[in-house]
Amino acid sequence: MRPLAGYRSGMGRPVTLVQLADVEAAAARIAGHVVRTQLVPWSDGDRDRPLWLKPENLQVIGAFKIRGAVNAVAALDPEARARGVVTHSSGNHAQALALAARRHGVKAHVVMPTTSPAVKVEATRALGADVTLVPPAERATRVAELVAEHGYTFIPPFDHPDVIAGQGTIGLEIVTDLPEVATVLVPVGGGGLVAGVATAIKARAPQVRVIACEPELAGDVADSMRHGERRVWPVDQTYRTIADSLRVSVGELTWEHIRARVDGVLTVSEDAIRAAVVALATRARLVAEPGGAVATAAYLEHRADLPPGPVVAVVSGGNIDPALLASLLAG
Amino acid sequence: MRPLAGYRSGMGRPVTLVQLADVEAAAARIAGHVVRTQLVPWSDGDRDRPLWLKPENLQVIGAFKIRGAVNAVAALDPEARARGVVTHSSGNHAQALALAARRHGVKAHVVMPTTSPAVKVEATRALGADVTLVPPAERATRVAELVAEHGYTFIPPFDHPDVIAGQGTIGLEIVTDLPEVATVLVPVGGGGLVAGVATAIKARAPQVRVIACEPELAGDVADSMRHGERRVWPVDQTYRTIADSLRVSVGELTWEHIRARVDGVLTVSEDAIRAAVVALATRARLVAEPGGAVATAAYLEHRADLPPGPVVAVVSGGNIDPALLASLLAG
Repeated sequence: MRPLAGYRSGMGRPVTLVQLADVEAAAARIAGHVVRTQLVPWSDGDRDRPLWLKPENLQVIGAFKIRGAVNAVAALDPEARARGVVTHSSGNHAQALALAARRHGVKAHVVMPTTSPAVKVEATRALGADVTLVPPAERATRVAELVAEHGYTFIPPFDHPDVIAGQGTIGLEIVTDLPEVATVLVPVGGGGLVAGVATAIKARAPQVRVIACEPELAGDVADSMRHGERRVWPVDQTYRTIADSLRVSVGELTWEHIRARVDGVLTVSEDAIRAAVVALATRARLVAEPGGAVATAAYLEHRADLPPGPVVAVVSGGNIDPALLASLLAG
Repeated sequence: MRPLAGYRSGMGRPVTLVQLADVEAAAARIAGHVVRTQLVPWSDGDRDRPLWLKPENLQVIGAFKIRGAVNAVAALDPEARARGVVTHSSGNHAQALALAARRHGVKAHVVMPTTSPAVKVEATRALGADVTLVPPAERATRVAELVAEHGYTFIPPFDHPDVIAGQGTIGLEIVTDLPEVATVLVPVGGGGLVAGVATAIKARAPQVRVIACEPELAGDVADSMRHGERRVWPVDQTYRTIADSLRVSVGELTWEHIRARVDGVLTVSEDAIRAAVVALATRARLVAEPGGAVATAAYLEHRADLPPGPVVAVVSGGNIDPALLASLLAG
């Protein structure tokens, strides 16, 4: 990665942004370890703005996170591989890193909050990871202790160049499969996905608009864009959105990519998110988690505001509680 | 199509079976009109018999039926195209033929039973077809009248060589995408899908086993195979299965393909079908209708009886009543 000449972050430190070559290297590393997902047409889109879905809910572990995790593990040098990796996550990144590590014969340790659903803890253990449960406030400290004690490499859920580069492979695939695409809608939580996708697309096809999509109730990226600097929303505010995977605020590194490369942000209501989960299930026959449906919700709520031309919405994950899906479908 | 030398049907008439060349011609005709669906890996399959899904629920109109319908319409000569097509169906074939006809600028007329859900009637009309509602017993008569009156070509839901050849393109795609496949599991109702898939696979890769899968409560193919002749089960018996799209019995022409080319049949319980719909939604993030989940149910219930090697289960459709999906997910 080359530092951008003269480019400085909001915090005054020079920032090195991920480049197209990093995403291309990631694509080579993850091939064979992930599903090369295929665009699915949406049947009742706008005539001038037909919609395609990038179904990362059909990805290994049911979410795009495996891409960044595999890239980060595969990029480790032999010494680091021998020592192992660690992360903290209660969500899709926990299973993604566990599986990526197992595939590469690397030891994985995942620190999860004691509030995690037992099913997620068991799923992470089933993939071969050691799991330590700690009170939510102690996660970062515990990770630091494990790094100091065992020499593990910390692979965070989004704020890491190899993770961003891995998620960016989705952008490469979109412009390869649909060269005429005009707009790409991407859910944003921590920002690894949209940072990577924008990196790939703005380098390969700069005319394509990349739009971050988030719940109004976790609208920290819209807030950050309005103010020209990163704004973090406290979780006691963002927990109100149904889109649990997007409650986290954008990271420092991902924010620098977003402000340099993302064209805009759309926020969506809770009603639109719920309606999008139902529409994906009934009209596209895809099961999406609420956070995974936010880009589709943005299309359904705001498509009249998009420029003409084909639109791709990334369906970023499908790990929804079956009882929640049942209640949404029952109306 | 060449008649099979010396091959005679159970009814004593010589039978012309669909050949590989017909399926290859169908593949060329339907390219660009249908989704080239991609195999999706199932994460917790048997180690010796890993499972892949062929997700035709992601197909245009949410079911494989569009393949046969497009092939049949595209194969019409100009005079027949100018006159139009007719069918009777209350299911996926109605919308498939309506859409196929519209794509080719051909008039379509669909005879539907008065018992059809209004939503299916409206969906068929929305695709540009004329719809006539008649009492269920009068469907065939009404089609014959329309053929006599307007010179329409009758495109039945399954018992037609062009329809079988169109569905067979799924078999070509499976052996192209997974050459090491050992077993292919295919839902069977009228039999157009399994007849076509077996035709393609037995010609291209004769070592692959093609297994028809059906509900025990609509077990006419198992019954027919046991007796060496086609057995029709009355609908007042088969209506008891939740797999509404498989309640119809196998056709005359499709049966001749099945007995010549299909290696076996597996029947599944209603509990297994319900469990497969839930497993597809929660573990593969795919919405399947009960009939579309029957091959997956056969894998989950009978995989220990399958030969070792990779298995493909065709998920044939995803048009399930949202309220039914909700109640299955709620348990």
